[in-house]
Amino acid sequence: MTSVIRDFSRLCLHTITTKPWSLSEAIAGYTKAGVVGITVWRSALAELGLAGSAQALRSSGLKVVSLCRGGFFPAGTAQGRQDAIDDNRRAVDEAAELGAPLIVLVCGAVPCMPLQEGRKQIADGIAAVLPYAEAAGVKLAIEPLHPMYADSRSAINTLGQANDVVEAIGNPALGVTVDVYHLWWDPDLEPQIRRAGESIFSFHISDWRTPTRDLLNDRTLMGQGCINIRQIRGWVEQAGFTGYNEVEIFSDEYWAGNQTEYVERIKAAYLSYA
Amino acid sequence: MTSVIRDFSRLCLHTITTKPWSLSEAIAGYTKAGVVGITVWRSALAELGLAGSAQALRSSGLKVVSLCRGGFFPAGTAQGRQDAIDDNRRAVDEAAELGAPLIVLVCGAVPCMPLQEGRKQIADGIAAVLPYAEAAGVKLAIEPLHPMYADSRSAINTLGQANDVVEAIGNPALGVTVDVYHLWWDPDLEPQIRRAGESIFSFHISDWRTPTRDLLNDRTLMGQGCINIRQIRGWVEQAGFTGYNEVEIFSDEYWAGNQTEYVERIKAAYLSYA
Repeated sequence: MTSVIRDFSRLCLHTITTKPWSLSEAIAGYTKAGVVGITVWRSALAELGLAGSAQALRSSGLKVVSLCRGGFFPAGTAQGRQDAIDDNRRAVDEAAELGAPLIVLVCGAVPCMPLQEGRKQIADGIAAVLPYAEAAGVKLAIEPLHPMYADSRSAINTLGQANDVVEAIGNPALGVTVDVYHLWWDPDLEPQIRRAGESIFSFHISDWRTPTRDLLNDRTLMGQGCINIRQIRGWVEQAGFTGYNEVEIFSDEYWAGNQTEYVERIKAAYLSYA
Repeated sequence: MTSVIRDFSRLCLHTITTKPWSLSEAIAGYTKAGVVGITVWRSALAELGLAGSAQALRSSGLKVVSLCRGGFFPAGTAQGRQDAIDDNRRAVDEAAELGAPLIVLVCGAVPCMPLQEGRKQIADGIAAVLPYAEAAGVKLAIEPLHPMYADSRSAINTLGQANDVVEAIGNPALGVTVDVYHLWWDPDLEPQIRRAGESIFSFHISDWRTPTRDLLNDRTLMGQGCINIRQIRGWVEQAGFTGYNEVEIFSDEYWAGNQTEYVERIKAAYLSYA
């Protein structure tokens, strides 16, 4: 049995989870709520700029768990692929300045590009960025996305595929992100988590709403959906993961409400269902 | 290279594809359009009743390819599971009377029931119905559904899982349905199609719209989306499949238009992209 979570010492929120908040507001809100970790989405850096964001995060005492998101490597032209590599290198610079040890990769997909070609371009792109990341002391994690995003967001749709890429590249700075929303349905999930082992660099939680009303922005709070979150957390911990439990919820419904109250609901759901 | 389709001798439409049409209208419309096969959804039987539907289909000269759909085996109570088995036996009776050699199974899922339990109940349900189907000369095909339906429609989400069930039960009256919409993203698809071989009982086509606006009813015409339909058809044919290419499109957009014109668009898309 997976141990029950009794405190917030491993709780991290993604800034996208409280999207209506600016980075300043998120920092203030999380700190006040006793949230320990923050994963910063790059879009949240616009308010204060990179240096200002880094300063605000340092002053807050929050632990920067990761920067979201790099990736989106496949493109129809060589220039497009180079632009993606350049942008990922900028993300590395940002992560280094923010003190984020990890960049999460949403690997990308181009509609009508054969998936095999997209997967090759993803592996090539990661290989091109990895030395730059290593030099900066920043790790990269492949986040396999749910198969419903295979058309335009990621041609890597199972943890097995992500593990294949990690093993093929064979660099300890490259690992995987396990997100229960994307992977819960996979009959091969438990053995693939075991296989990933120490290359599990981060762990994302939310829940699958039934019925789901929108392909992108209808995730729900832990316990409100059908995912066996605690069981998956157990598998991840048995594989050796000791990092943060990162709450990443895209939800038009929750974004429309009071974010301070929402963070309290997240905390309660975290203790009861994560 | 997969051979190009040059005629409509293997074209079959699902009655749900032209949902605004009654069964009578579908029979008339398909016949006039030179469509050869029809897969009948059980909901379409209400208009004429079972005997009347069977009579109308026989008179039409259309080939009844399959009856959609059986399945939905998992339930929270023993009574619920028995009701599902009884309903599947009724579907067998209907298929026999309609002259449909096959029932397609959407296997079912219950939100918050562990997927492993759902999968066990599916296998048990199929095993309970299979002798009755065999006695009636009706085959059953497991249709793995896209992982985005794992919460409430099917706990069987890859062809690999469907093949596992088929092999475990080991009855030649049980096989699989390959639907490109559900399976196109799977990196393991080609080997699993090869593995399925002669147990591929039917083949469904449509396309994945980008962006997809609705989880259920936003499939699109072949060629309008991102699925490598022709390549998958080639794999299926190499595995030995010689049956119909069944067009199964759920689409609020197309249902809102003129169905006679829509059937002509389907025919054109079929020759160009299937």
